[in-house]
Amino acid sequence: MNYWDYIRVEELLKLQGGLEGDESKMTNHEVLFITVHQVYELWFKLALREAISARDLFRKNPVPDVELSAAVRSFKRIATIFEQAVSHFKVVETLTTRDYLDFRDQLIPASGFQSAQVRELEVLLGLEDNRRVPLGKEKSFMEALKGEGGKPSRAFQRVESRLGDKPTLKDAVYEWLARTPIYGGVHSEEGTVEFLRSFLASHKKDAAVRLERAMHVAGTAVEASEVRARYEREMQNAESFLFAEDDPTADADTKRRRRDVRAAVLFLESYRELPRLAWAREVVDSVIEMEQGMILWRQRHARMVERVIGRRVGTGGSAGVDYLDETALKYRIFVDLWGVRALLLRAPILPAVEHEEAYRFRVEDRS
Amino acid sequence: MNYWDYIRVEELLKLQGGLEGDESKMTNHEVLFITVHQVYELWFKLALREAISARDLFRKNPVPDVELSAAVRSFKRIATIFEQAVSHFKVVETLTTRDYLDFRDQLIPASGFQSAQVRELEVLLGLEDNRRVPLGKEKSFMEALKGEGGKPSRAFQRVESRLGDKPTLKDAVYEWLARTPIYGGVHSEEGTVEFLRSFLASHKKDAAVRLERAMHVAGTAVEASEVRARYEREMQNAESFLFAEDDPTADADTKRRRRDVRAAVLFLESYRELPRLAWAREVVDSVIEMEQGMILWRQRHARMVERVIGRRVGTGGSAGVDYLDETALKYRIFVDLWGVRALLLRAPILPAVEHEEAYRFRVEDRS
Amino acid sequence: MNYWDYIRVEELLKLQGGLEGDESKMTNHEVLFITVHQVYELWFKLALREAISARDLFRKNPVPDVELSAAVRSFKRIATIFEQAVSHFKVVETLTTRDYLDFRDQLIPASGFQSAQVRELEVLLGLEDNRRVPLGKEKSFMEALKGEGGKPSRAFQRVESRLGDKPTLKDAVYEWLARTPIYGGVHSEEGTVEFLRSFLASHKKDAAVRLERAMHVAGTAVEASEVRARYEREMQNAESFLFAEDDPTADADTKRRRRDVRAAVLFLESYRELPRLAWAREVVDSVIEMEQGMILWRQRHARMVERVIGRRVGTGGSAGVDYLDETALKYRIFVDLWGVRALLLRAPILPAVEHEEAYRFRVEDRS
Amino acid sequence: MNYWDYIRVEELLKLQGGLEGDESKMTNHEVLFITVHQVYELWFKLALREAISARDLFRKNPVPDVELSAAVRSFKRIATIFEQAVSHFKVVETLTTRDYLDFRDQLIPASGFQSAQVRELEVLLGLEDNRRVPLGKEKSFMEALKGEGGKPSRAFQRVESRLGDKPTLKDAVYEWLARTPIYGGVHSEEGTVEFLRSFLASHKKDAAVRLERAMHVAGTAVEASEVRARYEREMQNAESFLFAEDDPTADADTKRRRRDVRAAVLFLESYRELPRLAWAREVVDSVIEMEQGMILWRQRHARMVERVIGRRVGTGGSAGVDYLDETALKYRIFVDLWGVRALLLRAPILPAVEHEEAYRFRVEDRS
Repeated sequence: MNYWDYIRVEELLKLQGGLEGDESKMTNHEVLFITVHQVYELWFKLALREAISARDLFRKNPVPDVELSAAVRSFKRIATIFEQAVSHFKVVETLTTRDYLDFRDQLIPASGFQSAQVRELEVLLGLEDNRRVPLGKEKSFMEALKGEGGKPSRAFQRVESRLGDKPTLKDAVYEWLARTPIYGGVHSEEGTVEFLRSFLASHKKDAAVRLERAMHVAGTAVEASEVRARYEREMQNAESFLFAEDDPTADADTKRRRRDVRAAVLFLESYRELPRLAWAREVVDSVIEMEQGMILWRQRHARMVERVIGRRVGTGGSAGVDYLDETALKYRIFVDLWGVRALLLRAPILPAVEHEEAYRFRVEDRS
Repeated sequence: MNYWDYIRVEELLKLQGGLEGDESKMTNHEVLFITVHQVYELWFKLALREAISARDLFRKNPVPDVELSAAVRSFKRIATIFEQAVSHFKVVETLTTRDYLDFRDQLIPASGFQSAQVRELEVLLGLEDNRRVPLGKEKSFMEALKGEGGKPSRAFQRVESRLGDKPTLKDAVYEWLARTPIYGGVHSEEGTVEFLRSFLASHKKDAAVRLERAMHVAGTAVEASEVRARYEREMQNAESFLFAEDDPTADADTKRRRRDVRAAVLFLESYRELPRLAWAREVVDSVIEMEQGMILWRQRHARMVERVIGRRVGTGGSAGVDYLDETALKYRIFVDLWGVRALLLRAPILPAVEHEEAYRFRVEDRS
Repeated sequence: MNYWDYIRVEELLKLQGGLEGDESKMTNHEVLFITVHQVYELWFKLALREAISARDLFRKNPVPDVELSAAVRSFKRIATIFEQAVSHFKVVETLTTRDYLDFRDQLIPASGFQSAQVRELEVLLGLEDNRRVPLGKEKSFMEALKGEGGKPSRAFQRVESRLGDKPTLKDAVYEWLARTPIYGGVHSEEGTVEFLRSFLASHKKDAAVRLERAMHVAGTAVEASEVRARYEREMQNAESFLFAEDDPTADADTKRRRRDVRAAVLFLESYRELPRLAWAREVVDSVIEMEQGMILWRQRHARMVERVIGRRVGTGGSAGVDYLDETALKYRIFVDLWGVRALLLRAPILPAVEHEEAYRFRVEDRS
Repeated sequence: MNYWDYIRVEELLKLQGGLEGDESKMTNHEVLFITVHQVYELWFKLALREAISARDLFRKNPVPDVELSAAVRSFKRIATIFEQAVSHFKVVETLTTRDYLDFRDQLIPASGFQSAQVRELEVLLGLEDNRRVPLGKEKSFMEALKGEGGKPSRAFQRVESRLGDKPTLKDAVYEWLARTPIYGGVHSEEGTVEFLRSFLASHKKDAAVRLERAMHVAGTAVEASEVRARYEREMQNAESFLFAEDDPTADADTKRRRRDVRAAVLFLESYRELPRLAWAREVVDSVIEMEQGMILWRQRHARMVERVIGRRVGTGGSAGVDYLDETALKYRIFVDLWGVRALLLRAPILPAVEHEEAYRFRVEDRS
């Protein structure tokens, strides 16, 4: 086999015909624009494959531990892909406003918003519909994927079929997390609740110390009472979050699962050195890293658009820069993982792990 | 001279004593934390020097063209510094939440918000007070810089003296921009107004074409009328922005200067190939690049904080992540430069430059 | 037009069939491998287009100065592309050795060495044949591009036709440089020689000062005489390089052209602030930046290969890592530009420019 | 505590006095130069601390597995630091040649080569003396660290005391690796040898297949016999490397330890999914990553120097660019880890692990 057949170079290099369908009539600027988007689509395809692999792994019950490192690698690979995607915007920024305007106006309504794979990735990972930011004239993000005259396009079909592809990565990871054994070799209601109670006791003690320090700094009586109120709110929030009482409309099953997921993440992050927990904790960390990568990509996208064309209406009819900045902050998927992060305590004040021996092992020769 | 004396290595390496004042008792994590902030302060010092040099250059009248490339280099150097600052957050992210919490709680109220040099940079560049986001208990950003018992600290003095160091970089650059000769070898009211009128005529024609295209895509009659309204608003806004009628409360002088600055930027970006305009246009582009670098740094800062400790109250009492995200979008300085960007037209529909010969020259031998 | 038709997403996403020709049977690792190479080929296509545009510009006589900034942008865009290419290796490094070996052995003799576009880029830029590092069994780099049974492949044809596409970028840029007017508005033998003589006088004076300083530091008499010999060699080399006497076998015309190119670069870099020289100097700097980008890409390539599979024989039969490291240092194109860099002097000791007024102008209103 | 006291900002910002000792007389370029080096020294200090922590951990016997993840984090942190150090060169490259020459010549013999901490890091990690590239007039790298008149400087003392600080990181890690239990719960001569024999059998079978494929591609009879010879050499080298017969002058103890280290790395990398091996394997990977980071830093250093001043003699008297490029490739420390990498086989042809159950465990609840 030759390199060029393997990589399918000739076919690949024929796909930059642009608006004219004739490469020789195109400027380098338009070729750049197409190239950047093609590179993104290639990366997104790989990111999707990795997310599917990870999802398929976590839907197993039990998840073979021997495969957890593969999941971590998938998440880290997606993160690395988004890191490259972030720096790609530097290439786009070699376009001046005028270069880009030369062909941009003819693109309407073509828009990066019509990238089916970005939508697929959001759907597969588990972005909830109620978090979506409505976009200009579109009733929904699915409308933007319809072809002329409202006909379902291949892009539409891709996303539609992904909407039916369950469970989402989030659901699969959460199911697995909810089975984490806390305080002993097997998962149990009692172990979980006991751990949460001990943890909240430590959290309270710590908050009291911090409150005292903050009171010391506070100037006036008004300030002092504000500070006190803030700390009390913080303590109540911690408890209601961990016991999943923060959404009273949820049913009992949902609450229990949420509590178990949050307790698991709290446990894994709090006792991160315990060897048996190591890969589970790496899973949590790499999911966070992956999601951070996507947020950074959205924010960098907003900055690139603002730099190249300023705050005009996007080709897809969106509010352009503002829309991108808004989605960056709102399109959160693994909210429970981020939520736990704000509650962690420093090691010296953590309650001791019960049944610690169940989480240890050693590689090295003991003899 | 030896390297170690020149770099003052020994003195430098003694400044990481931390909370204890004794390095041998510190964890590597705390040393990392201090190191990152010291590295930032060193870079900020240099960024300040470069901004001062550029400001001093633009306060000259006339600005010697031979020095414009030096100003561009200063702006690009600041942009490069912020690019490094962005990637530094990756080092901070090698801290786990627990590592950081170990010493973080004792830092209160010490906070990166107390970095005098960041405030100085904002002040020197020309961030306006009414754009500042109020922070927790502080009445003003100056309060946060006071020492214990409200005594003025060295940090406070630094920023205070910078507040008196006029003109700001923005004002100096704007003064110079306002003198740009448009449509001929010298600056004149007539040339400027004539250019703006021609440009707006082209802008209108272009908007009409784009409107037609958008109408073609619009589905319903309601959508169509919304689209039409949007384009009409766009045309009106363009005119009132360029003639600086967007803020009716401004006095005539302020309006005229704003108009001249905006016209100059529009002119430089529209006819960017003309050799005599080249360095002036590079100045505009590099200022944009510099400001983009600072925005990206603030957004990345928010992501790092969220990743390491989640959305808790900052050590300085701020709302943490939300505060950082908000300042990233609100702390804009060169708003006129960004504003013009959204109005630029593609080259083929620009009006011809009058007196084009005044903007040409050639390096190469003609003989 | 829709995004998916414009970007040709569906066709693009069907090109990752790999060895099996069936994507569903492929591992994510192989898809990653193909994707990275496809991304590279897309970027190289754009880099080629930019290099051709720049070459076409410099083959004009005279080169319109209004277009020099376009050339600079082409070079900087190529540099940015290579910068992205460098960081792409991080994605490849998410492959473990074992992942890669799984499909690598079946690729023989397919090899990145068979990338026609990399060869085209080298040829177009002007890499000389005698600098090429011979690769394993191949008699020449052209052999590696032949298909099975030695049939000329499309890859072979690409490079062959590029070999006939003259002038190279280097030759075109050098022709333009050789026409630079030195010491006055037009190019002349006298101006050039006079400048070189004045410059060499300053160079000699500077070397004498540096020699004295070095003698002060030198310990023994032997050291002192070595230091003196080194400085004398340096002075002689500077003169023979600038007057192009370093290759005595060259004919008079070649020598004169070389001298003129080197003198031009020396002049442009020495008086870099002069406005009329600004874009010509930016050309020189951006060519250097572009070539540096390519060297860094080759070195990073070597490091990636070493990390993923160690120092084994490459799929193309090459010596792998060593071969890559060797080409990084040997495949130099713009050697005269690099050569001049080592001779530049600090501003205060440069001879004054004669006819300086010929190189000045001012954008700003003088009135 | 305030930020400015904690970070010691005022003291820090007073250390950029340069050659003059008076900041107000310095150019921004010289401040930049000093700043970059100070930033490097701050990072190197942290890198040293992390390397010491890791070394201290691996000198324990047995190494508590609960701490392996801390070692991995130390290595990754050092790698991240060097990654930042690599991109810092971009800041230096905002210096033009002339900017730098303005103060460079007065620095002689001050040189980055006099950075004690770089030397300390090399020494602590375990760079062997016979790998060092001799530098210009210096008899040894220690000479360069002496003060005027040959007096021992603080820099000299730092490195001297580090030379006595044993074991090196390499030795400590190797001791730990040599105790790895292969083929069962405890380390044994028999398990190790049995594994190596099985592995070499697989390696041989694989080489035979690859040889056949290569023969198929080979053109002439001469080529064919060359290819065959190459594969036979490869097989012999693999065996002599793994059984540490590659250096016949070594004594039996040294050979046995080398064999055990190489066998351990081979084992860990070959069966990387086994949970009990996971952290040990991460140790190996992160050491490789750390060393790669240092090589990339040296190569990037060479490119920066070449770009800023070309190939002149360094301030420290070294051969400049060539010296830096040479050290990048020669200064290898963990050569056994790199060596094993070239021998790994793809998973399907690996021999089965004996006593696999000894390397498994599961986090998740089994019930």
